[in-house]
Parts: sequence; structure tokens; C-alpha cells
Amino acid sequence: MSPASSIRASRTALRLGLITMAATSMLTRAFQGPAIRSIRALSASQAATIQHASFIIPHSRPNLTRRHMSTAAELSPTQRTELESKIKAKGDEIRTLKENGISKSDLAPHVDELKALKSQLDPSAPPSSSSVSDNSKKKQADSTTTDTEESDYITSRSENYSKWYNDIIRVCDLAELSPVRGCMVIKPWGMSIWDQIHKDLDERIKEHGAENAYFPLLIPKSFLSKEAEHVDGFAKECAVVTHHRLTADKEGGGLIADPEAELEDPLIIRPTSETMIWYMFKKWIVSHRDLPLKVNQWANVMRWEMRTRPFLRTSEFLWQEGHTAHATAEGALQDSKDMIDQYAALCRDLLAIPVVKGAKSPSERFAGAEETFTIEALMQNGWALQSGTSHFLGQSFGKAFDVTFQDAEGKQQDVWGTSWGVSTRLIGALIMTHSDDAGLVLPPRVAPVQVVVVPIPPKKNDEESKVALNSALDTLVADLKSKGLKVKVDDRDYVRNGAKYFEWERKGVPLRIELGPRDVKGDVCVFKYRVGKEEKETISLEEASAKAAEGLEELQTYLLDTAKERLAAKMNLMATYDQMKEALEKDEASEYNGPGLYLVPWKCDAVNEEKIKEECKATIRCYPTDVNEAGMWKDKKCFYSGEDATHMALFGRAF
Amino acid sequence: MSPASSIRASRTALRLGLITMAATSMLTRAFQGPAIRSIRALSASQAATIQHASFIIPHSRPNLTRRHMSTAAELSPTQRTELESKIKAKGDEIRTLKENGISKSDLAPHVDELKALKSQLDPSAPPSSSSVSDNSKKKQADSTTTDTEESDYITSRSENYSKWYNDIIRVCDLAELSPVRGCMVIKPWGMSIWDQIHKDLDERIKEHGAENAYFPLLIPKSFLSKEAEHVDGFAKECAVVTHHRLTADKEGGGLIADPEAELEDPLIIRPTSETMIWYMFKKWIVSHRDLPLKVNQWANVMRWEMRTRPFLRTSEFLWQEGHTAHATAEGALQDSKDMIDQYAALCRDLLAIPVVKGAKSPSERFAGAEETFTIEALMQNGWALQSGTSHFLGQSFGKAFDVTFQDAEGKQQDVWGTSWGVSTRLIGALIMTHSDDAGLVLPPRVAPVQVVVVPIPPKKNDEESKVALNSALDTLVADLKSKGLKVKVDDRDYVRNGAKYFEWERKGVPLRIELGPRDVKGDVCVFKYRVGKEEKETISLEEASAKAAEGLEELQTYLLDTAKERLAAKMNLMATYDQMKEALEKDEASEYNGPGLYLVPWKCDAVNEEKIKEECKATIRCYPTDVNEAGMWKDKKCFYSGEDATHMALFGRAF
Repeated sequence: MSPASSIRASRTALRLGLITMAATSMLTRAFQGPAIRSIRALSASQAATIQHASFIIPHSRPNLTRRHMSTAAELSPTQRTELESKIKAKGDEIRTLKENGISKSDLAPHVDELKALKSQLDPSAPPSSSSVSDNSKKKQADSTTTDTEESDYITSRSENYSKWYNDIIRVCDLAELSPVRGCMVIKPWGMSIWDQIHKDLDERIKEHGAENAYFPLLIPKSFLSKEAEHVDGFAKECAVVTHHRLTADKEGGGLIADPEAELEDPLIIRPTSETMIWYMFKKWIVSHRDLPLKVNQWANVMRWEMRTRPFLRTSEFLWQEGHTAHATAEGALQDSKDMIDQYAALCRDLLAIPVVKGAKSPSERFAGAEETFTIEALMQNGWALQSGTSHFLGQSFGKAFDVTFQDAEGKQQDVWGTSWGVSTRLIGALIMTHSDDAGLVLPPRVAPVQVVVVPIPPKKNDEESKVALNSALDTLVADLKSKGLKVKVDDRDYVRNGAKYFEWERKGVPLRIELGPRDVKGDVCVFKYRVGKEEKETISLEEASAKAAEGLEELQTYLLDTAKERLAAKMNLMATYDQMKEALEKDEASEYNGPGLYLVPWKCDAVNEEKIKEECKATIRCYPTDVNEAGMWKDKKCFYSGEDATHMALFGRAF
Repeated sequence: MSPASSIRASRTALRLGLITMAATSMLTRAFQGPAIRSIRALSASQAATIQHASFIIPHSRPNLTRRHMSTAAELSPTQRTELESKIKAKGDEIRTLKENGISKSDLAPHVDELKALKSQLDPSAPPSSSSVSDNSKKKQADSTTTDTEESDYITSRSENYSKWYNDIIRVCDLAELSPVRGCMVIKPWGMSIWDQIHKDLDERIKEHGAENAYFPLLIPKSFLSKEAEHVDGFAKECAVVTHHRLTADKEGGGLIADPEAELEDPLIIRPTSETMIWYMFKKWIVSHRDLPLKVNQWANVMRWEMRTRPFLRTSEFLWQEGHTAHATAEGALQDSKDMIDQYAALCRDLLAIPVVKGAKSPSERFAGAEETFTIEALMQNGWALQSGTSHFLGQSFGKAFDVTFQDAEGKQQDVWGTSWGVSTRLIGALIMTHSDDAGLVLPPRVAPVQVVVVPIPPKKNDEESKVALNSALDTLVADLKSKGLKVKVDDRDYVRNGAKYFEWERKGVPLRIELGPRDVKGDVCVFKYRVGKEEKETISLEEASAKAAEGLEELQTYLLDTAKERLAAKMNLMATYDQMKEALEKDEASEYNGPGLYLVPWKCDAVNEEKIKEECKATIRCYPTDVNEAGMWKDKKCFYSGEDATHMALFGRAF
């Protein structure tokens, strides 16, 4: 999609006044607009000179990466010489560190720093030709090549968005492949994000009136057959437990499933728990007094996926699944709508992710549901990511498991149900909404560490300064904590300051505070935000904690606004089918800044939907709630069949 | 064990001054000692007259149940007539409720109330002969018999301790059997206890320096074979996944494991995660800078158990497992000791459970460990319950998975390890430490609801009183919440006050506050604690929240002290082997108030240990840390072999 058509689409959105996310923030409302604009007006080389730390990769903004790269070549001879000598010094330092037995993880930032320096020198080439992202390229002879280089490089988004995503996950220590196909290890940095989501959402779920419970991991296979559609949806790819013992193989070494311990009836690892929970609901529900009944569980589930991507699609994943039972259809429907609202609020308020809320087309519904509501988020490559769903199950599971209740008049009635869930996929949504070529970007409310304080040590024998620094540091940290901020002090004495800055920026910590002996003398410290404000700020120590709390809230808003703008800009509103087809059929997940989503008048038709999927790989992400309720489809013709439209449909490529 | 020998043992403990839990609280330090003692001096019938609500089962104390029962027969003719008319009225009420379609769960307290009344009339018979606990007894014809009766009766501890335990779990809605053998459904009331444990322990784990992560549910079977002892311990009974798809059975209906989707290498569901985690540690550990490395996961695990008991031993259970890697043996050993201290503190401070901390004998160690530390709690039947373990793994897993690090001198070294965990079994420990014949007793700090407020509605047309009541109620609840208390208001208009009291007492809510129109006029409310104080107290509304906060802390202390006294009293110190054998060989889990634990001089010997297990089913629970460090075994002869003792060993029957 060209910039011009993007602007056209946005204008249309404004005129229609129906797309909430478009209407709220069409203009770039930068966290600190003027500062950013002024930086962006400079050439990259000029910008580099106003950076305090020499190695910072300019924070690229959508569409600007390539421009940065081409202008970075405009180095003056002096700058080039200076850069070359820095590169040599860094190379020497790395060799010394390796000789002294530095750890892999401690070395990584040095190597990255070196690469960043090199990329400033020759930005037209990928920073390292030994990148895992392209094995066909020959390894360049390089005095600093180490076996850590491959794994510590972040492909730029514009080079390959899919690789960038995988690099971020690996380099920022979010997750790692495990030796079990399709299953990942969630590492501490990734897990603390999930723990934060868990905590926030758990409160919302309790407010919603559901209580936590826990149901068995294993489900008798016969349960799956009870609900006719459900079995089609979930029996296919699941892990089947057939034995309950291993034994030594008599014919050879090793262990085998003991033939004498075969289960009479195999069990499957839950792909979702509707069947088990409705089996229990039958025992728990007798009267209308027992309704509504709302339970939730935080659990692992397993679906044997053929193609996996960390966080987005893995065989095992963590999620919460809520299940509710109601006396009336209205009660159940309302419950499923309320929960999709909660999920949208979670994304907006905690993760700074704007979403499009809507209903799935009949062919995209959950197996066994009468209506599936979804929240769809837009990733930076223009693809959609289904980020949470809530299902109105009608009476399907109630009937399948014979769950009835006695109503107030004494009559037996079938029970209505819902189920709803979000998963570790939200971490994928978080990464692909905010992060940049320099690494992870975390909204302050979900960041495991909100402020990293880096004390800059005085000279070795300057005891007086050391005492003063430690005292100022203690006060600063106590002040920050008193504001409820999550603070980390990085006082490792074997890592250079620059390497520390680089590491924490890459890990997405929203604010870094530097505190050196000279700062202490002036009663100040230096703030540097991960994104939003390019320049460092000198802040008085007295005001530091208040400014930090305020600045982090502003950053949270800035990230949400930036994402809203992107969503509005990528929402194509007046496209013909041919235009959409042309744009989407050749679109790839790896292409950064792709054409985006298409909101079009549509006559609901499963056959045509399937044809479109074949022709341009696009699916209906949802029938967005707001425009459909506003009747935007009325008096319009379907963009595909030309018949009278029944809905406004949002088409797009999706993960 | 006779009371006399119990006292003797306790005196010995005091004299030795070595058993911490004995030394701190030998005397009955009742929460409000005098009040309790005075109540206990009354006959049960006299006591009944000072209870405001007529149906309360006297809170029995250990050993007093039978006495209560026999003295309850001393009803005067007037009391008997009054009781009979109450029983008739209750029966009529239940019939009416059933005709009006009351829910099963709402009916339950009424049925229980009826049974409690009946048991006052004829306490020598079990309250209901239709109890599931004895199917051989014929069902009595009873006009109020309902299908809920069977499931809502709590067997008294003295009648059958094991049945009492199962009844508590069922009747208090803690957990329920699932259709999958050996797996339970943890219901909301039980789950909220686990959530509270999770929250408290998660903070301790973070203070300990470990970070949360998540590792795959499934483990390649070959991993188990890597550590020689470990495979013996865990390969035997585990769930084996052999297929990744179900398909329709061509020869008949239903689904079968698809023969075309058989895994090349079967996977097992983790019984514990040492193997997977050490496989990953190899990737993460390079240098001494990477150590110590401490991770923890909250997860479900599965061990195919043949005999299960809810919470104590189930095929699937929830737990946390911590795994750490260290550069030195000392570092690892200290880590495992620190964590067992954390577990002991968790039990003491949150759950009000005193534990004996110690090391396992070599034959009771974790498969693959060089040392296993344990905390052992004493249940009310005199049996021990292993409640948490921490393992010093030596270099076993480090070597098995080839995990090495480069030390500061540049040499490659093998890594030392630990692992440690507690599980939902702690909920079993909680139940069996504090609860009584009237139901669950929850220490305030772990109670999902700490205060239940029951407003007593004014007469139908008394609008003025209704307004006053609502206003006083709002203020009271706000005050209580401002003290950080977890408050629930039970304002269900279709449940009688008495039934509400009964229900919340049974569920273990530590404090009930009643607030009626007359109370509001006098600016007071009525406090009733679940245990510790038998009498209701009238408290001014102004002071209510402060008194509640104070009273709940006192109750927490009271419960811990009571449990400490029991532990001290049940610690047999001077027994010969024959005495222990005689006491333990016929002891059963179902017998309330059994002989308890035996602390004896012992020469560590696996063969003798096995003989003792055969002869009297007793195992060495641990070598308690404090008495062993104090050298109490020195110059003593082994109570079994007569040889020089090497340890003080704690023997006992155990769940």
C-alpha cells in the first residue's frame, strides 16, 4: 500500500467517523512530538553525533529504516576514522574478555556493540554476513567472529520481518526451542511478562464473577465425541496417552512403553477443556439458583501443530480458559460479549495494543460455538493476529453433556454456555506491536523491570566520590520504589557502562537512569527512555522519582497512540476485490509494512470465503462490532459477489 | 499412646531442651484460654444452652468427641421435647424447599442442620445411617432422606479419620474426583487456597533469587535414562504419549489412536523436570559468571499412582519445582538448606503448621540426590505427612547432562545442582492439621474469605430499619476492607441465617460478623470466631474492624500454638523398639489420635530400616536437623541394633 493510498484510506476513515481507533488518533501524537521530529529531520550521521553513547542504533520508525540506512553512508572522513578506531578498540576488548573467560551472556552485548559500530560504517550491508538468517552467504573472515555472533544478531524488520521476530525472541531471552517438537521453553524474561498478564487478567476475571478452579490434564477420548462439531475441531491433532509405564526393552537397550501397561481407553492431553468441564457442570448444576456458574483455569494445553512459531503457535502453550453456564441465552451471550470487552481492555490498558473487536464468520467459529467473538491486533508487517476469543456456545455442550436445571417454575431446562480464553500468544502480539530493530520495546505497565539504574563508578581511589555515589544511589532507588516502580540496579563491575545500556535497551526496559560521580555533585541524574524521546534528559535527583513515574505513564500512552495510528493507517477502506487480491496474494509474513487489512461490504457466504482464501490467502478476521452495529453495510453491495451486503467484513492475512 | 505417656514424653522433651517445637509451647496457650476451659468444664447440654444458634455442633477438641457424645444424652425432658419439635419443623422446611425447587447446594446446609439436631437427640448413633461411609448398613426409612444426604455428612474424626478427611474435602467443596483415574478436580474453594500459597511462596522464591520460567510438559523418554538412579525412580509409573492423532475407528464407532500417527520416540508426561531443565542448563551455562543459575516453574506433573487420596497422592498434581546450578558443592548444599528453611517458614507463617525439618535417610532420598531435606508435619491421627523436599543433587545431573563451566582460572568444572518443591499436598496438610468435626478450619492468612458478614434482615415493612442496616453494613464492610481484610457479605434472601452460619463455619471462614436491626440501633455487631473462642462477642461498630484484624492475628497464633502442642505431645522420646512396634504395627490412618512419632537413637542402616518397615510399617521420616546438629545421638546405642548410634531418627507411620 502506497503512502498516498494510506492517507486516502485514513481520510475516509475520518469522514466515516466509524472506526474508533482511526478517529481517536490520526495525527502523530508522539510522546514528545517536537523532539522526535527534530531528530528525524537530521541525517543519521548528524543524529549520531548528538547521541551520548556512540553505539546506539538509531531507533527506526516504520518506513524510515531504509532511509536511515542510505543516509548513514554520509559519514565525514573524520567520523569514519573515528568509527574505525572504535571498531578496532572494541575488537581488541572482546579478544581480551574471551581470553579472560567471560561468560557467553556477558560477552553478547560487546559483540552486538561491535556489530552496531560496523553497521554505522557500512549500513548498506547486513550488519553481519554470518547471520543465521542467510546460510547461503559465505562467512566473512573476521577477527572477532565468535560462535556467539550468530545468535546475538537481530535482523532488521525491513530485511525480514519473520526473522526479526525470531531474533527478538532469541536475543532478548524470551523463549527457546526445546528438544520436544513444537514445544518451547519460556525463559525468565518472557515468563515475567506472562506472570504480569496473568496477574492483571486474573483480577479482571474475578471482577467478571468467575472463580479459579483446576481440571484434569487428561481427557477420556470418548468425551471428545460427545459434541459433534467439537470432535471434528479437536480430535485430529492431539497427544494420545496409551500406556502408563515404561519398561526396559528386552530386545535392546533403552526404555519402551510397557505392553502390559496399556490403557483400556486412551486419554488425550487437553486441547481445551469444554468436555471435561461440562461433564463436571452436570454434577454441579441442579437449580436456577446454581446459575450463572463461572469457572476459570490457568493451565497448559496441547495441540499437535505441524508448523510452529514461538508464542504464536506452539504445540503446548499456557492460557486461561473460562467456562460459564447460564439459565438464558441472553445471559450467556452477554457473558461472552463482556469477556471479549475485558480482553480488549487488557490489551489496551496493560499491553498498549489496540484491537478490532468483532464476530467471526460462521466458518471461522470455534468448533461447537454458535458465535465466536474475537479481538484482532495488527502486527507491524500488516498481518492480523487473533489475540483472544470468547464463544457463545448456545446449548451445544449443555445438550451434549445432558446438563439441565430446574427453573423458577419447576421445569427442567437445558443450560446455555460460553467459553473464553487468551494465551501466551499475547506475548507474540506484544513483541510484534511495539518492538523495533534495536530489540524489545515493553510498555511500562507490563515490563518486568521499569527502571534500570546504572551507577557509573568513580575512579578507583576516589573513596569520597564512592561514598557519595552510593548514598545518592540508595536514596534514588528508595524514591523510585516508593512510587511503586520496579527498579533494578545494574552494578556489575565486570561489564562496561555502554554494554549495560545496550543490553537493557535491547531487553526493552522502558527507562534507564545513569548516575555518575559528576551527576551526584550536581544533584542530578540522566534519564534515557527506550523509545519516544531520543535525547537524554538531565533531571534533578529530588524530582527524579516523580518524573520517572510521570514519564513512564506518558510512554505507555505514547505506545498505545503509535499503535493506534498504525492500525488506522493500515485499515484499507475503499478497496475493490482486485486491489485487495493484488496486494495480498503476494504478501508474506516476512515483509515488513505490508498492505494491511481490508474493511469491505460483504455478503456472508462460506463458499466465496473459501474461494478468497484460495485466491489471495486472506481470511475474514471478523465482522467488526462497531461498524456492523452502526449498519455501515446497509445499501452496499458485496465487494466480491456484487450481491446485497449483509456485513462489513475485515479481511487480511493472519498469523 | 496414653495421656500419661504423652505427658511423660513431653516432660522429657522439655528436660532435653532440644526439640524446638516442644520447648516453645508446652502449655495449652489457648487463643482465649479461660473462656475455652470454662466451656470445656460444662456438660455438653449445658454448653448447648449458651450457644446462640441451636444447631451448632460443639467444637470438639482432640479426645473430647466421644465424651461430648456420651454426655449429650443427658438432655432434660423439656430440652428433648424442644429438640424434637425443632427437628420436625426443620423436616417440614426441607420438604417445602424441595417442592420449591431449591438447588442442591443451597439445600445441603438445611439437611446438615437437621442431622446436627438429630445427633443431639441420639448422639450414640452415627448421625445418618445412610452415610456413604458404611454401605453395609441398611438405609433407615426417613421422611427427609434425599440424595444429597449421603454427600453432605461429615464423619467424625474419632469414628474414622480417613473418612473424615474425605468428607471434609467433599462437603467443603475443596476437590472432587474426576472421570480420569487418580486425577482430581480442584474446586474454587480449594483452588483459592492454592492460589494463596502460590502467591506467598512465589515471593519467597524470588527473594531466594530464583526466577520463574516454563519448561515443556512432555519429556523424551531417552532423557530419563541419562541419570542412572533417576530412571529407576521415575520411569516406572508415568503417562506415555505414543500417538499424535485420533481417528475414526474403521471397524466400529468411536475414535482410536491413529496408527499412522505413531511417534517415533514416545514422550512421557513430566513426573518432575530435572532432566529437561538440565538439558537446557547445558545451553545456558558457560562460565562461572553464569552461576548460580536459579529457575522455578509452577506446573502440573503426573505420576501414575495406584492408590490415590485427594491432595495427598494423585496422579496429576500442581506444584512448583525449583532447579539451581552452582559452581561449588557448598553453594548448592546451602541453597538446598535455605529452601527447606523457606518451606518451613511458609508452613509456619502462612499455614500455621509446625514442621520437623531434617534429612532423609539414604534409602528415602530422591532418585539422583546426594542429600534430601524434608519438612514433616504431624496430622491429627498421629501420622506424618512429608510436606516439602529440597534435594542436594551433587554433580549427578551436571555429569549426566554434561554441564560444565569455566571457572575463574579458566578450567572446565562440573556443575553442582539442587532441586526443591512443594505441591497441592500442602492443602492436605492444612486440612489435617486444623480442621475439626464441624468442617474446615482455615488459618486467617490463607483463608479465601477472612470475614463473612451476615446481615439479619428487618421485618418486611420496616423500611427505616432497612435503610439503617444497609448504611451500617456499608460502613462496616468498608472499614474491614480498609484493614486489608478479605470480606464477603452473605445477603442471599432465600437462605436462613442459621443455615448461613452453618455453611460458613463448615467452610472454615475464621470470623463471622452478624449485624441485625437491633445491633444497628445499639451501634454494635456480633463476632463469632470459627475456633478458639466459643462464645459470641458483642463489639461496637466503631471498633469492629480493628478488633477483627487483631482477633484474626490472634487466631493465626492460636492455631499455630495448638498444632505445636500436638506435635510436642505426640513426639515419643524414650520408647524402645518393642514399644514402638506394638504401637505402630496396628495403627491405621483411619484411627484418630494414634500413637504419633518416635525420636530414637539410630545407627544408619538400610537393611534394618527395611526390616522395621516390614515389621511395623514405620519409616524414617527424617534425621531431624536440630537434634542431630546438637549431637543428641552421641554416646547412645541404636534402639534397634544396639550398635553405636549415628543419628537421631524420627520414625512414624506416614501418608
